[in-house]
Amino acid sequence: MGKYSDESHRLRNVVVPLLSTMTSGAKFSAAGGDASFHIGAGQLDDCAVLDFHGEVSFVIGSDYVRGPKFALYEQGILNEYDLGFYLVMANVSDIAAMGALPIGLLTIVRYPLDLSDDQFELIMKGIRDAAQLCNAVIVGGDIGEAERVILAATAFGICEKGKYLLRSQARDGDLICVTGPVGTPGAAVAYYRSRGEIGQKLPVEIEEELIASWKRPEARVQEGLLLSKHGFAHACQDISDGLKATIEEITERSGKGSIIDETAIPIEVSVGEVARLLKVDVTSLALSASVDFELLFTIGESDLKGCEGVFASAGKRFYVIGRITDDHQNLLRKADGKITALPGVAWRHQSSDVALAVVDKLREQR
Amino acid sequence: MGKYSDESHRLRNVVVPLLSTMTSGAKFSAAGGDASFHIGAGQLDDCAVLDFHGEVSFVIGSDYVRGPKFALYEQGILNEYDLGFYLVMANVSDIAAMGALPIGLLTIVRYPLDLSDDQFELIMKGIRDAAQLCNAVIVGGDIGEAERVILAATAFGICEKGKYLLRSQARDGDLICVTGPVGTPGAAVAYYRSRGEIGQKLPVEIEEELIASWKRPEARVQEGLLLSKHGFAHACQDISDGLKATIEEITERSGKGSIIDETAIPIEVSVGEVARLLKVDVTSLALSASVDFELLFTIGESDLKGCEGVFASAGKRFYVIGRITDDHQNLLRKADGKITALPGVAWRHQSSDVALAVVDKLREQR
Repeated sequence: MGKYSDESHRLRNVVVPLLSTMTSGAKFSAAGGDASFHIGAGQLDDCAVLDFHGEVSFVIGSDYVRGPKFALYEQGILNEYDLGFYLVMANVSDIAAMGALPIGLLTIVRYPLDLSDDQFELIMKGIRDAAQLCNAVIVGGDIGEAERVILAATAFGICEKGKYLLRSQARDGDLICVTGPVGTPGAAVAYYRSRGEIGQKLPVEIEEELIASWKRPEARVQEGLLLSKHGFAHACQDISDGLKATIEEITERSGKGSIIDETAIPIEVSVGEVARLLKVDVTSLALSASVDFELLFTIGESDLKGCEGVFASAGKRFYVIGRITDDHQNLLRKADGKITALPGVAWRHQSSDVALAVVDKLREQR
Repeated sequence: MGKYSDESHRLRNVVVPLLSTMTSGAKFSAAGGDASFHIGAGQLDDCAVLDFHGEVSFVIGSDYVRGPKFALYEQGILNEYDLGFYLVMANVSDIAAMGALPIGLLTIVRYPLDLSDDQFELIMKGIRDAAQLCNAVIVGGDIGEAERVILAATAFGICEKGKYLLRSQARDGDLICVTGPVGTPGAAVAYYRSRGEIGQKLPVEIEEELIASWKRPEARVQEGLLLSKHGFAHACQDISDGLKATIEEITERSGKGSIIDETAIPIEVSVGEVARLLKVDVTSLALSASVDFELLFTIGESDLKGCEGVFASAGKRFYVIGRITDDHQNLLRKADGKITALPGVAWRHQSSDVALAVVDKLREQR
């Protein structure tokens, strides 16, 4: 079953038909300048080409998505389309975190020889569809054989000159805000990793909520653009390593500390259900390693109403979960008023089975 | 022996010290515009940031280097420094092929848990040194754990607006030129792949020539810039898949054919020695799959003297090896005057043992 064509065939019969129209005429503007594409993935040349006019800041980042993040693919819960979609969103999320408009991506798609043409096309369709949702263009990249499926990408974007958002600019007294619920992807991996061992399943609608966080993640592009355009955010980062790791990074880079209100953290029902099943603390699970793609940003208290208004006008919202402090510790004010160290297990990019490590550590901490 | 620190430690103690000074104040100019860096790898933010001013064309490409290309690393002939160096040169070569000035790279460096801090640092030093040789800046990327060493990068550059070089612009009657000898890296892999089986070794100075093509490849940046600046080249591509594949690509994309003079192809002594040892035709071996990083370009005959003069003034040279034709075939005029199909085995990015496939096919063709 299935065809297994070589790279040359796949470039001409899958990549070019899917991507060749994306580049033509694509033009992106930021105050003071713009960028337009000339040569993209459809042309299969050495590089993509775009022209810059005027004055803009250009942002660019690379992200590799392989390894523990693919546990759900290896279990058959995600398919090839989902992987392609995820690859693009993970990379666009870094552009969103800079407050920039994503304009293009290059994708590296490597696969074993037993990945069929149909499966390859699914990956590329996921890539194309996610890019289209973000109004960005796939301009090139690399495909070919490897030992396993290996996906990486580079995304880039533009913003008004100098208006990009950094991690290091949080100020004492700033409100800490997040654009959406945290911890669902991490809880999903923990659940599917442990489900067999526990011998118990969660209801199907709970499983669907868990899986949706992996199948159709959403980079917070509009939110990032609102923050940079209106100048509200002091610091900003995407929560792709989990909330605890992100707070630690922002406060360390800014030379500050924080206090988070446990009751203010937005957490989906499914995360609570996983915590109950695994017998771990729900807040700790929600703050641990999790690829959330929400934005964490800090704003001055006096900007809260203005920022809420601008978000509401765009049909968006955010949650105030705590405050930046000057004392270099990251603390949690629990529901009962007690102050503790910020719980959870931060992602350290080292364990080959993060989900298991998180669950084990959380159990030790009980 | 050796330390095996986590990603966070390696970022702070290896990546930042090695790369943080590269970004500061780095500024690149093309006629009509320029680009300057603000945030780079040293800042460890979500993305790198650069500002564009004026009007420039921006070129960007990604290249993955893993798999068969690393055969020599797995045999202990290349070390980690060589891999890092190679990764950068392979990616800069695509910028050179566009006739653009390389300005920056993002590198993805993934490794197994048993890769020590010292080995990791060697990779990063190779990356840094190659980037410095090319006057380009490492602006970011991604590091972390994987099943094996996995390297990929994205390189980008700028050129005067609209002056980039494409593969598809070769014209009937154009001279086909290459910037240097072809086939050495391919011959090196074929030799080291077969050495044990044959039970015979080449002299050490021949082995050194073979290995040098992998240890210290050179992207032809100056040559590409001369070609685009003076407007000589019609079509241009780097020979990273071997000469036969490159000629086929340029002629197919341009809707043309070619005739190559066997006696005009620059081939190093070591390639002849490998061909002799493996009992294959030397021209066929030199034209087969090989990561040469030379540029192949086409120019009008009336520009030959002018182009030679400009190259000579810059201390560079090139070789005229044939001519573009209108007949859609790629031919070889052999030393004895006979005309044959262009020999060699073109790289198809599919076999997991390219060297062996090439040698086997060349032997069948005898």
